[in-house]
Amino acid sequence: MKIKDIGEFGFIKLINKGLINNPEAVVQGIGDDTAVLAPSGKNQLLFTTDMMVEEVHFSLRYATYRQVGHKALAVNLSDIAAMGGKPTHAVVSLGVPPERAVEDLQELYRGMADLAARFGVNIVGGDTVKTAGQLVINVALLGEVAPGRAIYRSGAEEGDYILVTGTLGDSAAGLYLFQNQDVELAQEIGDTLRKRHLEPEPRLDIGPLLAETGLVTAINDISDGLAREISEICEASGVGCRLIDKKIPISEEARVLGEITGHSPVEWALNGGEDFQLVFTVEPDGLDEIEETLRKRGVAYGIVGVITSLEQGIGLVTEKGIQPLAKGGYDHFSG
Amino acid sequence: MKIKDIGEFGFIKLINKGLINNPEAVVQGIGDDTAVLAPSGKNQLLFTTDMMVEEVHFSLRYATYRQVGHKALAVNLSDIAAMGGKPTHAVVSLGVPPERAVEDLQELYRGMADLAARFGVNIVGGDTVKTAGQLVINVALLGEVAPGRAIYRSGAEEGDYILVTGTLGDSAAGLYLFQNQDVELAQEIGDTLRKRHLEPEPRLDIGPLLAETGLVTAINDISDGLAREISEICEASGVGCRLIDKKIPISEEARVLGEITGHSPVEWALNGGEDFQLVFTVEPDGLDEIEETLRKRGVAYGIVGVITSLEQGIGLVTEKGIQPLAKGGYDHFSG
Repeated sequence: MKIKDIGEFGFIKLINKGLINNPEAVVQGIGDDTAVLAPSGKNQLLFTTDMMVEEVHFSLRYATYRQVGHKALAVNLSDIAAMGGKPTHAVVSLGVPPERAVEDLQELYRGMADLAARFGVNIVGGDTVKTAGQLVINVALLGEVAPGRAIYRSGAEEGDYILVTGTLGDSAAGLYLFQNQDVELAQEIGDTLRKRHLEPEPRLDIGPLLAETGLVTAINDISDGLAREISEICEASGVGCRLIDKKIPISEEARVLGEITGHSPVEWALNGGEDFQLVFTVEPDGLDEIEETLRKRGVAYGIVGVITSLEQGIGLVTEKGIQPLAKGGYDHFSG
Repeated sequence: MKIKDIGEFGFIKLINKGLINNPEAVVQGIGDDTAVLAPSGKNQLLFTTDMMVEEVHFSLRYATYRQVGHKALAVNLSDIAAMGGKPTHAVVSLGVPPERAVEDLQELYRGMADLAARFGVNIVGGDTVKTAGQLVINVALLGEVAPGRAIYRSGAEEGDYILVTGTLGDSAAGLYLFQNQDVELAQEIGDTLRKRHLEPEPRLDIGPLLAETGLVTAINDISDGLAREISEICEASGVGCRLIDKKIPISEEARVLGEITGHSPVEWALNGGEDFQLVFTVEPDGLDEIEETLRKRGVAYGIVGVITSLEQGIGLVTEKGIQPLAKGGYDHFSG
């Protein structure tokens, strides 16, 4: 069955189930001109949006519809995590070529709904429209944070430690495997890397806890590669930094793929993007407590460098000495 | 200059001016992972989103980029008006073919920013990504309403009057003129109708005031034609209605165009859509006060029918007797 066979309103009826996970906060969900929501007390609101376009941000040659739905919400959840907040409500716009199968679009919604359920997020509205050829998904997401607790990019100071969660470069390594399908590699290793690319996990397990400590001075989520994300923090904060290449956490899987293919996993970490881990800076005397917080939650991390003065610029410490770090990252309209 | 020449980040710098109209409500606007907002007191939140796709919702053969920007925000503002609320903050996603001129996209933003300024709305974030051929604009909009004051589609009761604001069918008449450019018509009349189609005016001047009276039982904004909008109210409320064709307010301009072309302006009003006026129902003993409210604000209106029992169905009273009203309206994926 194609979406043009059941129409916009038939489709809404099909997917309008299991989208409310925190009913107390919803006065009116899907079904009126707008959703009506009850914000909790005196929190500040977080508000973000991301658009994903077929063959630009994802390809159905690699990803299932369910994974596309997962990722469309995950990238927004990651932005809330990077503010130290808690996500609450989402609205979802879908631009769909009329020939697409209803079942596939239901799968896409399932990918979103499953992830929303895990974090108590309500999907409270949306729009479904026609496009000529490309599937387009836009998610707008609300979150909350206690007043004054949001963490910006601009708070890093000279002497702060730079930490990252998880391992970096796995998503880029997974994408490399999709684009180079003749690489011979143990199935398990390939599966792990491909999944990291297709099903990123927003770090909501740790972002809000980091904010609560009051010891974290700046955070970004790593959507565009560590080089760009730390550059953004340094620019916004008016500081420089030294990243230490050997301290960037690389997974065993990415290391193996790098060896087989002659690629540098550190390069994937710096400029690959879409890991959706967090990079954050910590006051010098706060490091012990932050490490304790990370360990308690079982969050893998690495101390990858330090914040310096602005004059020292943004540098990468390597065996060959300090190299200036190119900003890197993905610009939609370059090249 | 094309957007691919200055890139995503260059473009953000260009448009990131004059987007905040109510700075007190903004803790952090564009420039971090998410916006941070300060909601005012104990109001409930309204949350809505609409996606507009080139050659589906608009065509640059008819509209300027500035008008496209205006309309993308206007349709969302109209949804807030139809809840009786006040709009507060928007995030804007733009999917752009790389060959588009930066100046045109700035014009698009100007159309949005000018309208936002008129209603004290802040544009606090967004996303700018690449598409293959079609321009895609998604706006997600927040608003506020006093607890319990939001007006739904579901509150209409038997005996309520049905009112509409403004005149209906003008937008469809304007679209007809774009699609039939050989129609001979006084310039002024054509200009008025074309402008109604390209630059719809959200009824924020009256929506919140209607909500405050406590006498309005249901509202919809007329995005899909009066027939569909009143049908939605009747379905949600479990009632029927009688619309009276002669009572539907038709502009002099639409009447003239109808006469010249042999089209029925009432048909445009019922099934044309995109007028973005309001249709609403009023308790029988509240009509005097509502008419007084409308008159005081200089809002043109018509009393177009009454709510009946469910059993009587949805009917249009015409010279030929009562006809069942087809739901009509635009379905993206039908036909």
